[in-house]
Amino acid sequence: MTPETHAAEMHPQRWGDPAAATVLPDSALGLVDLAFGLQERPAVTGATPPPVGLDDGLLDGLRAVVGPDHVLVDDATRAVRTRGKSTPDLLRARAGDLGDAPDAVVRPDGHGEVAAVLAWAAEHRVAVVPFGGGTCVTGGLVARRDGFAGVVSLDLVRMKRLLAVDDVSMTATLQPGLRGPEAEALLAAHGLTLGHHPQSFEHASIGGFAATRSSGQSSAGYGRFDAMVVGLTAATPTGSLDLGSSPANAAGPDLRQLLLGSEGAFGVITSVTVRVRRAPAAATYEGWRWPSFDSGADAMRALAQSGLLPTVLRLSDENETAINLADPSSIGGTDDPGCLMITGYEGTAEQVDARRAAVTTVLERLGGTPLGAGPGERWVHGRYGAPYLRDALLDHGVLVETLETATFWSDRSRLHADVRAALQASLGDGALVLCHVSHVYETGCSLYFTVAARQGDDPLAQWQAAKAAASDAIVAAGATITHHHAVGTDHKPWLAHEIGEVGVRLLRAVKAELDPVGVLNPGVLIP
Amino acid sequence: MTPETHAAEMHPQRWGDPAAATVLPDSALGLVDLAFGLQERPAVTGATPPPVGLDDGLLDGLRAVVGPDHVLVDDATRAVRTRGKSTPDLLRARAGDLGDAPDAVVRPDGHGEVAAVLAWAAEHRVAVVPFGGGTCVTGGLVARRDGFAGVVSLDLVRMKRLLAVDDVSMTATLQPGLRGPEAEALLAAHGLTLGHHPQSFEHASIGGFAATRSSGQSSAGYGRFDAMVVGLTAATPTGSLDLGSSPANAAGPDLRQLLLGSEGAFGVITSVTVRVRRAPAAATYEGWRWPSFDSGADAMRALAQSGLLPTVLRLSDENETAINLADPSSIGGTDDPGCLMITGYEGTAEQVDARRAAVTTVLERLGGTPLGAGPGERWVHGRYGAPYLRDALLDHGVLVETLETATFWSDRSRLHADVRAALQASLGDGALVLCHVSHVYETGCSLYFTVAARQGDDPLAQWQAAKAAASDAIVAAGATITHHHAVGTDHKPWLAHEIGEVGVRLLRAVKAELDPVGVLNPGVLIP
Repeated sequence: MTPETHAAEMHPQRWGDPAAATVLPDSALGLVDLAFGLQERPAVTGATPPPVGLDDGLLDGLRAVVGPDHVLVDDATRAVRTRGKSTPDLLRARAGDLGDAPDAVVRPDGHGEVAAVLAWAAEHRVAVVPFGGGTCVTGGLVARRDGFAGVVSLDLVRMKRLLAVDDVSMTATLQPGLRGPEAEALLAAHGLTLGHHPQSFEHASIGGFAATRSSGQSSAGYGRFDAMVVGLTAATPTGSLDLGSSPANAAGPDLRQLLLGSEGAFGVITSVTVRVRRAPAAATYEGWRWPSFDSGADAMRALAQSGLLPTVLRLSDENETAINLADPSSIGGTDDPGCLMITGYEGTAEQVDARRAAVTTVLERLGGTPLGAGPGERWVHGRYGAPYLRDALLDHGVLVETLETATFWSDRSRLHADVRAALQASLGDGALVLCHVSHVYETGCSLYFTVAARQGDDPLAQWQAAKAAASDAIVAAGATITHHHAVGTDHKPWLAHEIGEVGVRLLRAVKAELDPVGVLNPGVLIP
Repeated sequence: MTPETHAAEMHPQRWGDPAAATVLPDSALGLVDLAFGLQERPAVTGATPPPVGLDDGLLDGLRAVVGPDHVLVDDATRAVRTRGKSTPDLLRARAGDLGDAPDAVVRPDGHGEVAAVLAWAAEHRVAVVPFGGGTCVTGGLVARRDGFAGVVSLDLVRMKRLLAVDDVSMTATLQPGLRGPEAEALLAAHGLTLGHHPQSFEHASIGGFAATRSSGQSSAGYGRFDAMVVGLTAATPTGSLDLGSSPANAAGPDLRQLLLGSEGAFGVITSVTVRVRRAPAAATYEGWRWPSFDSGADAMRALAQSGLLPTVLRLSDENETAINLADPSSIGGTDDPGCLMITGYEGTAEQVDARRAAVTTVLERLGGTPLGAGPGERWVHGRYGAPYLRDALLDHGVLVETLETATFWSDRSRLHADVRAALQASLGDGALVLCHVSHVYETGCSLYFTVAARQGDDPLAQWQAAKAAASDAIVAAGATITHHHAVGTDHKPWLAHEIGEVGVRLLRAVKAELDPVGVLNPGVLIP
């Protein structure tokens, strides 16, 4: 895949591959009309980014580092490196606002070139936004401009190599620009898999997974991305890091964990060494019906606490179950669909059979009703599709967005109720507020909310108010402001509630040490 | 247990409880004589610490914080807070050198008093050595004195409460002064366990486990201590930290991991919230014979990589197996004892049976020979005993010490050979160099070495040379300088090889932010 293909793939006003866009059938449009009232909201066409604010002489320094072909200033390239893919990002772009476009897109190849770009940026006080898949949904690709000569997007699109495979230790070293499917294809040639499948999998990058501490839909089986990382290298404006002497150790604090989640503000991750697994020979996904969200969540907890997790484990609340199941027969044919759980098993045929049998015994004992493979297969088929549906709904005047959090099991029910109430109160009775659990731990779980509401005159402000209300509810409940979407700029106002003033000072101290001029993703992550 | 009992329990010249001291039977003495030549090395008796170097007026400030009863300056109390329990520590104390004794021992109760002690220390430039169980074996309890008015030992002996139990989320919040058995007893009253059993379990503390990223003998089943921690509070000279909003999240870097392993240099951990498990109803331990260390280690790898670990999994190399098995019949009665593996299973009876059956199938397929419960029971019985044996051997002129490292599976064999060769070359052909694997991961394992050699005229220098040779071999192999003993002062010269200059700068930056005067454990951890 060439760099150019990638650039075309991400449109500033929409998700992903234009060829994969969802077209709502008439029946769906009818439902949308019934729920929210159809209103066409075509995006502004021909929107262009502002003029390049860095002069050519300055950019020549960059060209000397990466070659003239890899410093791009054309409008099309800059447009598709503007912001990320949150609904606010799309709403701004749809309104014709590409004001956050970088002045240039620079494409270094390798750790040395990344380091040289950072040195150039520090010397000339140019802000640098590391760019992998561009799928950020928390404003992490919007750099603060004031105080800087300009902004460049540091595009990792040329760093797509599988640098090493160790199939004894079961590790692989990957460059950060590899997107999910590219990394999996390279690993598959060795019979291996990473097993990291967030909803953004088709477009998001290895570097992004590391920098945001991503968690995938198969986290119950494969773990969070940060738990897969055994080593990493990073370039900073003041030197390089090469960490990962061993799977685990006691050689002081685990500094790998300081780069994981650093969102491009401390350095650019130039390679990660990850734990890999044998590519699964077998996979099966099923549905279960639970009488309530509580009973299903209690079953998830029982599985997590007995060390008996499937590879995929998800549970929709009553609202999400009702909305997502067009065909009630798929969940037992009753008027009350209850709550849909998806269980998935991947591994050798023997592993799949054994784990499935053990999990099935527990779930039946706890009151679950097996629904067979149908719901599981439908979930697998649509697992990356929601952002395309969002585009189609935005086109028809529906405001759609998601947010997520995590807490301990004993606080799950309260957090679910409080966030749902906050969103409903802010968006009004006509809004839909859906939730599911998609990541579980022995001690707690994530909660992932989706909202849909009729767009008002100012949908951006409409969402921002709802998001603030939900975030306030999250911090009031003592939960995390983000389980796997990262902080970016959107969550920054709430971060200090979570990590405290001393925590904020720690982030600032690390930033000042590695990036004293402050050129790396200024304004992102650190309050 | 009163604070006084603890103080009596730890003797500066020996391990643990004097009542539990090992007396070598004549048969063992005969073996020692045969191997090394018996030489009596009685410790200097009546050794006393140097005079208190902090004046009474200064100490009154401390007395105002914690009360006069909890600022102790008597020789006996100061003597048992001098250094830790490495062989060099014991050799110095046995030679009558208590020169590193603190000027005073202060015993705060609660986070607020700890914070106040740190503020006092920063104001008066007094070095503070946080003290839990005093079992450190890497020089982590010896503070640099130059530039400071004096040194106080901040003894956490009064902070022994179970602050909270959440048996839905399966978490417990513990104060740092709780020793292993005390924490387990408090949890057992709730039917819970932490499952953390390092060799130092009987004396080491919860705070120490966290501050050093300890790993226990049951790490295959319960995980490393840092993996159990979901939250913590810490007092620093410049403010307090309260981290742990959720089991896992993406709210920036995981700052918990910056305090875990900070060895008292960044702050004093005043509570930890840990993941707990149901106390096991059943437990069984067994032995297996492997024809070689390689074949046994490959079997451990197979278990780890198939997600099929017992609770305890250990493997001794040929040397360690031969030495530790006084009765060859216990390992099959052959002249070639091969390599002894211990497998242990803890949980419900059902879990133990199922896991044992699955593991047994794998181990038999891979060429292991089951030895039944005998070796397992003997291992359980002696699991905390080795440091007492060391005392007895030191008494008879044998130099005994351990060191440990970890690496990826593909480097295990080379690391084992290189470190063994370095130790043997330094200590001479007459020395015994034993090794076992006691902690495994999907991607690698630890290696734990024990050496025994005839003490020369200067056993301290003799060991330091061997330790340096082994450490050089470890960093040359790209492995970690410490898997679970921590950095202290002993490993500091090698830390920069492992984390690089930028890594060292990060530690310094964090230290400067939290402890700008540098009173916390000066000279420990940070190069």
